[in-house]
Amino acid sequence: MIVKHGMNYLSVLNSARNHKLAPPLAVLRRQQFLIRVLGVRGENIMQESKFEADADNILRAITPVFDPNRHKGQAGKVAVIGGCREYTGAPYFAAISALKIGADLSHVFCTKDAAPVIKSYSPELIVHPVLEESYSVGDRDKDHMSRRVVAEVDKWMERFDCLVVGPGLGRDPFLLDCVSEIIKQARQASIPIIIDGDGLFLVTDNLGLVSGYPLAILTPNVNEYKRLVQKVLNCEVNDQDAHGQLLSLAKQIGGVTVLRKGMSDLISDGEIVKSVSNYGSPRRCGGQGDILSGSVAVFLSWARQLISANEGNLIISPTNPTMLGCIAGSALLRKAASLAFEDRKRSTLTTDIIECLGRSLEDICPAC
Amino acid sequence: MIVKHGMNYLSVLNSARNHKLAPPLAVLRRQQFLIRVLGVRGENIMQESKFEADADNILRAITPVFDPNRHKGQAGKVAVIGGCREYTGAPYFAAISALKIGADLSHVFCTKDAAPVIKSYSPELIVHPVLEESYSVGDRDKDHMSRRVVAEVDKWMERFDCLVVGPGLGRDPFLLDCVSEIIKQARQASIPIIIDGDGLFLVTDNLGLVSGYPLAILTPNVNEYKRLVQKVLNCEVNDQDAHGQLLSLAKQIGGVTVLRKGMSDLISDGEIVKSVSNYGSPRRCGGQGDILSGSVAVFLSWARQLISANEGNLIISPTNPTMLGCIAGSALLRKAASLAFEDRKRSTLTTDIIECLGRSLEDICPAC
Repeated sequence: MIVKHGMNYLSVLNSARNHKLAPPLAVLRRQQFLIRVLGVRGENIMQESKFEADADNILRAITPVFDPNRHKGQAGKVAVIGGCREYTGAPYFAAISALKIGADLSHVFCTKDAAPVIKSYSPELIVHPVLEESYSVGDRDKDHMSRRVVAEVDKWMERFDCLVVGPGLGRDPFLLDCVSEIIKQARQASIPIIIDGDGLFLVTDNLGLVSGYPLAILTPNVNEYKRLVQKVLNCEVNDQDAHGQLLSLAKQIGGVTVLRKGMSDLISDGEIVKSVSNYGSPRRCGGQGDILSGSVAVFLSWARQLISANEGNLIISPTNPTMLGCIAGSALLRKAASLAFEDRKRSTLTTDIIECLGRSLEDICPAC
Repeated sequence: MIVKHGMNYLSVLNSARNHKLAPPLAVLRRQQFLIRVLGVRGENIMQESKFEADADNILRAITPVFDPNRHKGQAGKVAVIGGCREYTGAPYFAAISALKIGADLSHVFCTKDAAPVIKSYSPELIVHPVLEESYSVGDRDKDHMSRRVVAEVDKWMERFDCLVVGPGLGRDPFLLDCVSEIIKQARQASIPIIIDGDGLFLVTDNLGLVSGYPLAILTPNVNEYKRLVQKVLNCEVNDQDAHGQLLSLAKQIGGVTVLRKGMSDLISDGEIVKSVSNYGSPRRCGGQGDILSGSVAVFLSWARQLISANEGNLIISPTNPTMLGCIAGSALLRKAASLAFEDRKRSTLTTDIIECLGRSLEDICPAC
């Protein structure tokens, strides 16, 4: 349901039209925004479950209108912390997905071994070979090296709208110690953080890293969710009360947002629970979670821009930008996965899904 | 001589030469093409026998129906042991073929030199740079290094549904010693093992590695088969009794399954012999054997899932999962090779055939 302090669309639209002080472009953009949102109403009625998010309309609402006056970076600057000797595909999938959705700049911070490979996947990414694994660091140098690694990432921190921590991170103890410090720095700088993959392995054992941070999003799959529930709620996963349990989990971690991936994605910030159930694809090839984390990073950044542009007076619900980012990211991945599967069937790979991100976004929310 | 309906090559050529209505060269080339096709079909007819497998129906029977409730990994996790300083294409072909057919995860365990290259071919693969060759290991360190290499692979072993040992493995003595240990570990964990390429060079001289292991498949080409026959049966290849000789060979190695690659693929587990003779492609570009080993790995995994789900009560024959995997893999490669050749003719490469795996599977067994 779309409301703004009891005003209906027309009155909001008129108030925008009659606004004498605003420059025409601003009014026009505001109108275009409202008109996009207006497209929603009929579909809202169709929503069956009270939990089901109005995903496509939320995606439309938070995706910015193109503005020729904007410059590089304003549509989003995202950084992925991940990529080690073993894993190079996951951080690439997350970082390139962010660009394919519309981010202007996408960085990857990975180990020295992983950097040339990730760079070779695409010239579009900015890849920083700054992380280190135990095998390349002597015990004596660890403190010094750790400070250097964290400083290397920190000097970029302020530029990023969102951090994705975990795709292809691996589980090297020294590397994870450094990443813990990077998470603390990001939190200090109030940068939103999406934790996925091996980042969840780290955080589940160190909940203090994200606990109570409203700009943190955890995106566990079946097994990662099981570990999280056991650790935080000290019980087993209860699918009879999936919504209630997810709500308690998110609340227990101090209001972080948890996106539980599954046949339906369930999302909660400890206040509300929403689900995204649009049919995606039955293929479960590895890498789809990385597309999701990169997508959520972009949509979360856009949602925060929208909220600050509207001084918090959002005409969509929910109003928590982390919830909005998760809902839009989940909806887009499902749409792209279904388009890729239509075309490739059993041979669908993650790169095929990434190739469908642009068309999916255009289908839901045309650029112009 | 190639004969059809009593017409021989010479008379067909003459009829072409005497043809008045078309330019002689065009007619001649057309006739030569027809003769090639007719020739092959003629030979296929001669091969069709009680031995010919009902390949397409077997492929349909073992390929799982999609289930949205399944999660990542349940459609198959395959590992290829191969890739060294000299060879990087072969393990890539095997591993990517497994994904293109429908496996969820595909790993490669290769040498440190080979890893960045194999990774760069595709972000979809998980590539572990863990194998070592003699040139990089001092004599003193060999025992310690060997234990480390085997342990690095072994810690992943339980996760895999099937191992492919050999594509691009090379023949370095130290590396092959480590791979012998890896084969022993896989056998201990009852993981199916497909032995191809340089893996066959290793196994032919160390038959004890696979002898008596019912989950082992050997996939020799003409020369590898010749060596195997000489070593095991102590005689030359006898094409007059190809089926009988293959049966004895597989029985002699204690009931492993042998897929003899040729114009018709012959497959035996020492109990029965089956052939797959669908027409594939006349191109013999290197790498097709790697597609086959990766494909057999996936179909074998699916066949085992089907058998355990039905508690052994299969309505298809044969019922040995290694036979089923070989038959389905052979049929799919032949279909993909023929589609690729239709499109690319003389310039058909292995990557073109891999690109046709999905369409071939869809033609035989539509996803939905």
